[in-house]
Amino acid sequence: MFEGKFADRMDFLQPSPIRKITAIVSDVRAEGKKVYALNIGQPDVAAIPAFGEAVARKATEDPQVSYTAFIGEKYLRETYARYLNNYFERKNVSHFHIDTHNVAVTVGASHGLTCVFLALFNPGDEVLVFEPFFSAYRGFVVPSGAKLKAIPTKAEESFALPPEEVIEKYITPKTRGILVNSPCNPCGTFRTAEEMDMLARICVKHNLYFISDEVYREMVMGDEEVTCVFEVDLKNDEDNEALKNLMICVDSASKSFSLCGARIGFIVSKKEITDKVSHVVSNTVTCISDTLQYGVAAAYDEVLRDPSYFKKVRAVYRERRDATMAAIKEYLPNAVAPVPEGAFYVVVKFPEFEDISEYAMYMLTKFNLGGETVAITPAAGFYMTEGAGKNEMRIALVLGPEEMRRSIQIMAEALESYKEYKKSANADPIKKL
Amino acid sequence: MFEGKFADRMDFLQPSPIRKITAIVSDVRAEGKKVYALNIGQPDVAAIPAFGEAVARKATEDPQVSYTAFIGEKYLRETYARYLNNYFERKNVSHFHIDTHNVAVTVGASHGLTCVFLALFNPGDEVLVFEPFFSAYRGFVVPSGAKLKAIPTKAEESFALPPEEVIEKYITPKTRGILVNSPCNPCGTFRTAEEMDMLARICVKHNLYFISDEVYREMVMGDEEVTCVFEVDLKNDEDNEALKNLMICVDSASKSFSLCGARIGFIVSKKEITDKVSHVVSNTVTCISDTLQYGVAAAYDEVLRDPSYFKKVRAVYRERRDATMAAIKEYLPNAVAPVPEGAFYVVVKFPEFEDISEYAMYMLTKFNLGGETVAITPAAGFYMTEGAGKNEMRIALVLGPEEMRRSIQIMAEALESYKEYKKSANADPIKKL
Repeated sequence: MFEGKFADRMDFLQPSPIRKITAIVSDVRAEGKKVYALNIGQPDVAAIPAFGEAVARKATEDPQVSYTAFIGEKYLRETYARYLNNYFERKNVSHFHIDTHNVAVTVGASHGLTCVFLALFNPGDEVLVFEPFFSAYRGFVVPSGAKLKAIPTKAEESFALPPEEVIEKYITPKTRGILVNSPCNPCGTFRTAEEMDMLARICVKHNLYFISDEVYREMVMGDEEVTCVFEVDLKNDEDNEALKNLMICVDSASKSFSLCGARIGFIVSKKEITDKVSHVVSNTVTCISDTLQYGVAAAYDEVLRDPSYFKKVRAVYRERRDATMAAIKEYLPNAVAPVPEGAFYVVVKFPEFEDISEYAMYMLTKFNLGGETVAITPAAGFYMTEGAGKNEMRIALVLGPEEMRRSIQIMAEALESYKEYKKSANADPIKKL
Repeated sequence: MFEGKFADRMDFLQPSPIRKITAIVSDVRAEGKKVYALNIGQPDVAAIPAFGEAVARKATEDPQVSYTAFIGEKYLRETYARYLNNYFERKNVSHFHIDTHNVAVTVGASHGLTCVFLALFNPGDEVLVFEPFFSAYRGFVVPSGAKLKAIPTKAEESFALPPEEVIEKYITPKTRGILVNSPCNPCGTFRTAEEMDMLARICVKHNLYFISDEVYREMVMGDEEVTCVFEVDLKNDEDNEALKNLMICVDSASKSFSLCGARIGFIVSKKEITDKVSHVVSNTVTCISDTLQYGVAAAYDEVLRDPSYFKKVRAVYRERRDATMAAIKEYLPNAVAPVPEGAFYVVVKFPEFEDISEYAMYMLTKFNLGGETVAITPAAGFYMTEGAGKNEMRIALVLGPEEMRRSIQIMAEALESYKEYKKSANADPIKKL
């Protein structure tokens, strides 16, 4: 038997239940059932070709595979700054100008957030976050010893933020930051310009860092564009100056270019903050792969020349979303499912359920419609409040419109079948997730 | 002015003085002086071609750039396990057998160590390390909140470990591990089989983790091979079983294949430890680049088929070392410079000096021999004990034998000139490093 002792913090790093479903899906597929895997958290569209071309070129032509600058390669930081300024110009909005020295490169947004938390927060510090939120945040905050504190939002209210005075009630002397994710994983909600202004106002008033996770910025499905944290204008020079010292934007190439495996992210903030964060980067991973930085710079260059990749991806997800929402309306009329504006997920609430994970397991292990079934992600993992989200699921828009429609139809049939099953007294218990 | 507040731990993450020298070298070169840059910490030999070929193939043929398994891709972990078992078989030594489930992939050894510390140690825990040691360890331990505690070794004794009873005196109730680096950066010393056995005995006796940083395992310059931690045999089943629960080997593709920029490292330990460490990996960076794992697997495959790359690199460094040691004997007869057996550095001690960093700056800013000078790394950064190592330098074997010889000759001339300069009453002060 193993009797080693681990650090106390390991108690807070529990394996993700999302990954457990992936394992079950494999087993079920091995038994010959077709599974529409809507539990996946990874876009399925092909990566932007410019990345692979640049990586292949670098790998073929450069015999040196060298350490890089701690803060990231200058050409990539410059290109990213150009991309972000161009984003504002495209929208024709006023904004804080981004220079190369504001940008640091990280191992994806995951590492970016981990390093931001390590650079800013002491053990016991509190960071406000709106639930439902990306479950991995719980892990990224652990090395810093800080704690997340969840402020609820509701499916019935399309996950809108509560008013300023409600948010302020969550602030204690230990609160040091607010973390927002727009568009949001899992619910696909945008934070409106008004909501971003409100959060900025609260941050300036209470001297809190305003951490904005914008990895889905380019993955939008409607006509509206995402409000970046650097667009906030508090209409007052003093407040805007104070805000500059508090804003941190986290971004990544993963979702924008379908490059989840490239592990290249960005931190954008006032130079002093960026320098500190990159200091944590160098003390956790030394530096970031030169090959991948080169490839990702080519991807940003490509969309600066010709944004058609973004347009194509948006059209793909918009079509899937529209088909999915129509199917939900048709087949699951009792479900509450706010229309997502970005990212590539839909949260679906079944008000009549107590625990949706049992239904999820039923679909995988006890149900099929013509040999087919569906895998979904129970949403409780995206909530911290005890009991919250237990009757919600997240489905990912990772299949074509026809398959999304078929999946919803299967889910509706499974729902009826599940209700019947629960009524039958002699039924086997359903394995817990 | 920026008035943000950072985490307290940032006080322990000071920018590396080694990087400052790099900046000064650039300035001096811009002024037209030729600089033999022996301060560099990166091998200059070309990367193994199998890496670039595989990366180019993957980048060209695979349109998906996907998230990977948290613990690392199975093909890479399997290949690495084969490599390590083959290492033991090549040497014909008995060893703990390595399975795929013992291996996790990390973002280089830097991230490997950071994750090991986070998985094992609580704030205030102590980790013993032998000085001089790789200065970046100070940073990698910071996120965990643990502290390094240095046990001195001496240039005059070829940096041999002190006896068991001396090491044991450093153990307190807070001590949780011993960290050893063989061959060692900066001093190039091997830990002998006897030293490794002794450390293992101490670890078992006091229930300490035995963390062995073996990134220079394949970079050896003599006929002797490195003793891997998994070769230790305590000649007693109970002790060997206990040891299995304590041993952690950290490795990397960076030095073995001149792939510093690939950022692929490994943790090898009992499955239970490997799983915990990979859990920290996923909570700090999510996962490791698929493209780079693919390339590095090809590199290990290549040396398993044909180890000529290792042989070629070893011959290159051996020739440089031999030329350097001969030149030191000839030009710097008063220096103490133990012959390095591995890695690619030499520590040179000038017993007559108080602070070698002044001499280093003198060489760069006030001296030249026919328009040429030398950059070195003052060794004080590799020590924790106050005042230790101040009259030592590290030079890296990053130039050909003739250029290494020329560099030592310049250093000797600079030494005489510096002594004269210090005697002259009106001399300008030398800028501090």
